[in-house]
Amino acid sequence: LDAGRLARTSPHTVARFLERLAVDDRRVVLRLLNIEEVADVLSEMESDDAAEVLGRMRENRAVQVLEALDPDDSADIFGELKKAEQKRLLGGVDPQTADTVRTLISYPKDSAGGVMTTDVATVSRQMTVRQAVDHIQTLNNRFEHIHYVYVVDDEGKLIGTVSMRDLVISKTDDSIGDIMKSELRGVLDVMMDQEDVALEMAKHNFHALPVVDSGNLLLGMVTDDDIIDIINQEATEDFQKALGAGGDEAIHDPILNSVCRRSPWLLVNLLSAFFAGGVISIFEEQISHLTILAVCMPIVASLGGNAGGQTLAIVIRTLALGGLERKDSKSVLIREAFKAGLNGILVGMISAVAVGFLAGRWDVSIVLFVAMILSMTYAGLAGALIPITLRKMNLDPAQSSQMFLTASTDIVGFAIFLGLGSLFLL
Amino acid sequence: LDAGRLARTSPHTVARFLERLAVDDRRVVLRLLNIEEVADVLSEMESDDAAEVLGRMRENRAVQVLEALDPDDSADIFGELKKAEQKRLLGGVDPQTADTVRTLISYPKDSAGGVMTTDVATVSRQMTVRQAVDHIQTLNNRFEHIHYVYVVDDEGKLIGTVSMRDLVISKTDDSIGDIMKSELRGVLDVMMDQEDVALEMAKHNFHALPVVDSGNLLLGMVTDDDIIDIINQEATEDFQKALGAGGDEAIHDPILNSVCRRSPWLLVNLLSAFFAGGVISIFEEQISHLTILAVCMPIVASLGGNAGGQTLAIVIRTLALGGLERKDSKSVLIREAFKAGLNGILVGMISAVAVGFLAGRWDVSIVLFVAMILSMTYAGLAGALIPITLRKMNLDPAQSSQMFLTASTDIVGFAIFLGLGSLFLL
Ligand SMILES: [Mg+2]
Ligand SMILES: [Mg+2]
Ligand SMILES: [Mg+2]
Ligand SMILES: [Mg+2]
Ligand SMILES: [Mg+2]
Ligand SMILES: [Mg+2]
Ligand SMILES: [Mg+2]
Ligand SMILES: [Mg+2]
Ligand SMILES: [Mg+2]
Ligand SMILES: [Mg+2]
Ligand SMILES: [Mg+2]
Ligand SMILES: [Mg+2]
Ligand SMILES: [Mg+2]
Repeated sequence: LDAGRLARTSPHTVARFLERLAVDDRRVVLRLLNIEEVADVLSEMESDDAAEVLGRMRENRAVQVLEALDPDDSADIFGELKKAEQKRLLGGVDPQTADTVRTLISYPKDSAGGVMTTDVATVSRQMTVRQAVDHIQTLNNRFEHIHYVYVVDDEGKLIGTVSMRDLVISKTDDSIGDIMKSELRGVLDVMMDQEDVALEMAKHNFHALPVVDSGNLLLGMVTDDDIIDIINQEATEDFQKALGAGGDEAIHDPILNSVCRRSPWLLVNLLSAFFAGGVISIFEEQISHLTILAVCMPIVASLGGNAGGQTLAIVIRTLALGGLERKDSKSVLIREAFKAGLNGILVGMISAVAVGFLAGRWDVSIVLFVAMILSMTYAGLAGALIPITLRKMNLDPAQSSQMFLTASTDIVGFAIFLGLGSLFLL
Repeated sequence: LDAGRLARTSPHTVARFLERLAVDDRRVVLRLLNIEEVADVLSEMESDDAAEVLGRMRENRAVQVLEALDPDDSADIFGELKKAEQKRLLGGVDPQTADTVRTLISYPKDSAGGVMTTDVATVSRQMTVRQAVDHIQTLNNRFEHIHYVYVVDDEGKLIGTVSMRDLVISKTDDSIGDIMKSELRGVLDVMMDQEDVALEMAKHNFHALPVVDSGNLLLGMVTDDDIIDIINQEATEDFQKALGAGGDEAIHDPILNSVCRRSPWLLVNLLSAFFAGGVISIFEEQISHLTILAVCMPIVASLGGNAGGQTLAIVIRTLALGGLERKDSKSVLIREAFKAGLNGILVGMISAVAVGFLAGRWDVSIVLFVAMILSMTYAGLAGALIPITLRKMNLDPAQSSQMFLTASTDIVGFAIFLGLGSLFLL
């Protein structure tokens, strides 16, 4: 491991490498990098990991790193430190950084304010292009991203934007007021949720979006490199939560951590499985006389769970991408029930024929056929209803939804199949 | 609906609105927009939908729209047209656009070449900043994204990059060779898969990455607004495929389309469910004597499926984000089996006690306890093994993995539980 090669490696790669080292080894590696390089690497790590690293650095060096970081990253990492450490380090950093960090950590972590940077280049409309360029040159060393310049009035309210490209192609004595775009799209409220921030970014195709408060005062901007990380993080959260794992659980997390995060949902699942077992126990008598009912049970349960899962996946992704309006909920429920039901006719028919030939019981076949159509129709309905209802209750539409789904399709599937069976077969 | 308001609405919003209209209504709306506006809206639609719209426009107007589109979007939409229409329109567009489109559609749709734009500003190292700026001004009206300028040698090989910011802050008589960055990170091979392109973008935090061929000849660039769309699209694909729906299925697709795309996987599922039923049929005799076995079956199956699903979600997301190296596969398999097994001890114990008290059969309890530990350990293993194996076979690690998983956990769970039950309980 030599310092030169390390410095040439991308900060992202170094961050991934560090995450897998023991804490003491991390310090050895980081000692080979200068302050700027350490800041770049920490900004690519999860903020809690970065905070741990920072907490173990010499105070003097830690302070320098906090100052070198983008304000948004600095605040994220800072927010993960223990109160005592926060106090100790905040005493060391320059007053301006301290102020910015204090402001930024006051916003919810997942809000526009929580993900914005305050390193924003602002100009006034009276400036000429030449003056604006001179002004930007003074900011350049401190600010990481300058792709847009925001035009503010005397009170700091946002009135327009100018891109770096506009500056390059304009005449140097044009006024900013003349070249700025004043019809603003994609202006973010500071309290907007980061998922909606990401949707706005996807909509408008800008490299950064400005963040304002309710009085249109410019507070900062969100840059698209951060949006890419947010989108990946939200997609991971949805997928993992939907299947009952932790939203930010990582594969290399300590084993007991993972186990503890997954067990509550398995306990919920256990409760629902006992209900499913309870439904079966109502029909124990019938099953002992006609064991083919037990043989067919998993067919009904499995197809119901999976038909519902197909719907669930599409509804959760549509919700995540902002594609499902509340007024469409009802038609989606009906359509999804119908889709699953149509597939129920197909697989029900095949199942019925197969069971008829294999077991020679065509009466069981008919019951299975009807039960599968009904239970799969229900599954399609439930696959849409569960995430839509969770959202209506302002809960995360993804949370353990696959577990809730299969719990309900098991229970309903067994009840329908065994109920029909005991009515018509015995 | 008035033309002014429509023109002020973001192209993304108009695109979402159009998608839900009948084909004839779309034309009415689009007639209210000028060529540029139509191009912006079409670039925000799925390319097959956009192609349908384009195919119904007057030829003259369609040609103008194709020329106004970014080359990458133009090629995407063009590629969805029927051969006859392609030929007809290609005759109309200017030779340069025709050439570019022909080149771009020759790359695989999901490759860097398939998503890149060829509208790239290039300069030579000998130019001064002033000359470069003059050159960019001539390109500006034609090119949508100019945030970086790429420096190429006489043969067109990529040798450096200059950001618009560098141009703004440099002296006008500096030479490009002096201010360019020649240590290049994130250069994409034209055949690289778009998922890897997205990972590169997440790593390097640039607004665009250059695309070269194997001889380092600059061919185009991929911009981060397109990456955001790709990341969302890939996340949707993974989630929906994992649960057995179509990777690009949308909630408003025609019902029969959805049904047909989902049914093949349900048929695969049906086959596996028959195997699970087959396992149970081996033990029909035992079940008829001890029906509590049938009652407990769904508990074993449901917990196995869900414990495996937790692992599956984490493994698929880790693979998607490039976080799982092949050499780590084995340790991941062991760790995931272990995690699920530990939770198996927990839920197995609770199940055992509950069944003991509810049914008064403590011998069944013990069998259930052991069966749940074993089947959940297997589930954790399978949840990791399925996507890892699919990847090893160069298949999509997400494809219907949840279905394969629950198929196998059902079969293995029933075999273990009923097998142990018939050995020790009867
Ligand atoms: Mg940074
Ligand atoms: Mg933050
Ligand atoms: Mg977009
Ligand atoms: Mg940032
Ligand atoms: Mg979230
Ligand atoms: Mg979410
Ligand atoms: Mg199941
Ligand atoms: Mg465009
Ligand atoms: Mg393309
Ligand atoms: Mg990044
Ligand atoms: Mg593009
Ligand atoms: Mg793909
Ligand atoms: Mg994929």
